[in-house]
Amino acid sequence: MNSYPSKLIENAVNEIAKLPGIGRKTALRLALHLLKSKEENTFSLTNALTDLRTQTRYCKQCHNISDEEICGICQSARRDRTLLCVVENIPDVMAIENTGQYFGQYHVLGGIISPMAGISPSDLHIDSLIERVQHNEIKEVILALSSTMEADTTSFYIQKKLKPLNVKISVIARGIPVGGELEYADEITLGRSIQGRISAE
Amino acid sequence: MNSYPSKLIENAVNEIAKLPGIGRKTALRLALHLLKSKEENTFSLTNALTDLRTQTRYCKQCHNISDEEICGICQSARRDRTLLCVVENIPDVMAIENTGQYFGQYHVLGGIISPMAGISPSDLHIDSLIERVQHNEIKEVILALSSTMEADTTSFYIQKKLKPLNVKISVIARGIPVGGELEYADEITLGRSIQGRISAE
Repeated sequence: MNSYPSKLIENAVNEIAKLPGIGRKTALRLALHLLKSKEENTFSLTNALTDLRTQTRYCKQCHNISDEEICGICQSARRDRTLLCVVENIPDVMAIENTGQYFGQYHVLGGIISPMAGISPSDLHIDSLIERVQHNEIKEVILALSSTMEADTTSFYIQKKLKPLNVKISVIARGIPVGGELEYADEITLGRSIQGRISAE
Repeated sequence: MNSYPSKLIENAVNEIAKLPGIGRKTALRLALHLLKSKEENTFSLTNALTDLRTQTRYCKQCHNISDEEICGICQSARRDRTLLCVVENIPDVMAIENTGQYFGQYHVLGGIISPMAGISPSDLHIDSLIERVQHNEIKEVILALSSTMEADTTSFYIQKKLKPLNVKISVIARGIPVGGELEYADEITLGRSIQGRISAE
């Protein structure tokens, strides 16, 4: 698709195709869809995106997206303020919230340590995590990071920093996914699930 | 994903997910991508979409998208003005242009006759097609519509309308796709490819 009938559509396709996972064919389909549907639809889309980008605020305490200075989870009296779950990013908070299994607070790092991508500990919200643990009555920090090399590095770095503060540190369980079959699990996962076995009583 | 951390992101996800083929998970990923990238990126996207929707014009002659009153293809002296290719929609023009095999002009119907979707001949650019054939020296009209029931109905309707004008009418060939294997072709396609066989000399 290299011959666009107008500069306007070419420009729109170029911009839409910059979004992750959207190619030029899909971008063209979306642009033509907007052209065919009511003008208001395009305006409510562009307004929502502009508002999102210009007005979004981040919770001063946990760095999650928030409508106010302190987010709903941090403000809530129902959440256990002695329990802190450390995650990489905002979708991780949403994923854990959707499990309905966690009632403590969060701390969003905003990424993981990655020398390859030029992300060092100072680029992440690690200092504010340490401060938060120092100045609040926090009994347990749960590290809920992915299971990759870089996430493990980040995990170890945070554990080292937290050690002097005498707080309980835990890591989410690695093992066979629920519904997963043993024979198809990779060896490392299976090994971890045996190491991390729990009492069946 | 039902617990969004802010109204702004919820609103943006709702709007993005209205686009065809984009679900709520993808919409969230796109919204978070915009939040992470520079403000300018969001602005150039929203500006491109607004410009597309408010400033796009259509060629008065062929109804293709155009930057000017008459599109580049209709204006071009290099295109054969006695040859007219009738297509359903704008992407079809682009697809045929990309083949590099066609050097005539186009006529975009803007859809096909579909009683189920409430689209009647008067909703399409059929009258302007007839007028165009009447008032210009057009020797051949090529019907390049899809191979569906509704497209066939549209094709027959146009043929009936064009008949009194004594213009040559042709239909693009139906048959085995290039690179396609005979044994996997459906019976109707194979039947059509035999009926429509051409001399191999």
